[in-house]
Amino acid sequence: MTQVATEPTMRNGINIDQMYGTLDAVKGMPELGKFQFRAQNRWMGGSHNRSTIKDFYGAGQVQTREQSFAVDAGEPAILLGDDFGPNPAEFALHALAACLTTSLVYVAAARGVRLIEVESTLEGNADVRGALGLSDEVRNGFQNIRVTFRVKADAPAEKVKELVERARSRSFVYDVISNGVPVEVDVIAA
Amino acid sequence: MTQVATEPTMRNGINIDQMYGTLDAVKGMPELGKFQFRAQNRWMGGSHNRSTIKDFYGAGQVQTREQSFAVDAGEPAILLGDDFGPNPAEFALHALAACLTTSLVYVAAARGVRLIEVESTLEGNADVRGALGLSDEVRNGFQNIRVTFRVKADAPAEKVKELVERARSRSFVYDVISNGVPVEVDVIAA
Repeated sequence: MTQVATEPTMRNGINIDQMYGTLDAVKGMPELGKFQFRAQNRWMGGSHNRSTIKDFYGAGQVQTREQSFAVDAGEPAILLGDDFGPNPAEFALHALAACLTTSLVYVAAARGVRLIEVESTLEGNADVRGALGLSDEVRNGFQNIRVTFRVKADAPAEKVKELVERARSRSFVYDVISNGVPVEVDVIAA
Repeated sequence: MTQVATEPTMRNGINIDQMYGTLDAVKGMPELGKFQFRAQNRWMGGSHNRSTIKDFYGAGQVQTREQSFAVDAGEPAILLGDDFGPNPAEFALHALAACLTTSLVYVAAARGVRLIEVESTLEGNADVRGALGLSDEVRNGFQNIRVTFRVKADAPAEKVKELVERARSRSFVYDVISNGVPVEVDVIAA
């Protein structure tokens, strides 16, 4: 008997065999697709607060990471803070950038395109008179967001644009931010 | 001549004098309220990417922090990653938690309520068959998000609930996530 060590097929740093295995598993058992992501946040004083991110529910069970992530948010001085971290609006842009990029990497891996470099710049425009409570005529949040990708890949420009378009159309956070999600807020006064 | 060192009026770690100064300045010159937040993201390989957050436009000029923030995003193994950081969906929850908390802290400071402890738990439900491209009948992103605040304050429970409600109604990221924002995606294929 000989054992043959088979290397996984990797593309763009993604294990393609695992990718198709996951897709087949969820196709065969749709309830594996039910996920619940979670974050716990604690006020640290002033504009500084910290989220702890560790477990989530997915593929039929609670998935617990070995270590938790701690992410600090703050505000710059001009918004009454001490710059303990990016501010919440900037984290929303980061979530969007990260999701579009990951979608692009996965889509390209599935379609056989090798990516060389992916960079993006995000700009979110707002009038903070809304959030400051000074005007009911402007909204609190971003009026619009512009994302500019610079992509170097082993593929012609047209193919790259098609991949980015496919990534956009399947991006989790793009959907959340462009279409909105019902949010319920409950309070326990301790 | 005597010089009197005046301590700023602080509440919940917020400089109240500066808060009212900012509100008055923006009231008097509404164009100071125009802000643009920014993030730059770079693919690091596989599901790992990193945003760099440094400057933004606000109060009539580009505001550059002394140091930039680097924020890493990843995916857990079950979503084909190596857990280099929270995933994009979790960062969206963090952005929401951070913004609601900061709004609450500022609103309470303005209304004279001293906060003692603020914690929140966020749960976002999704069916990832959308984002995996396996179903067009479920959306890509969260179907709904539930936020539960636990607040200890020098105020009765009813007052605390009223403050959280006011914070929600003025939260920047709550507006973004619950109402959605137009997002434009451009691609430069290098």
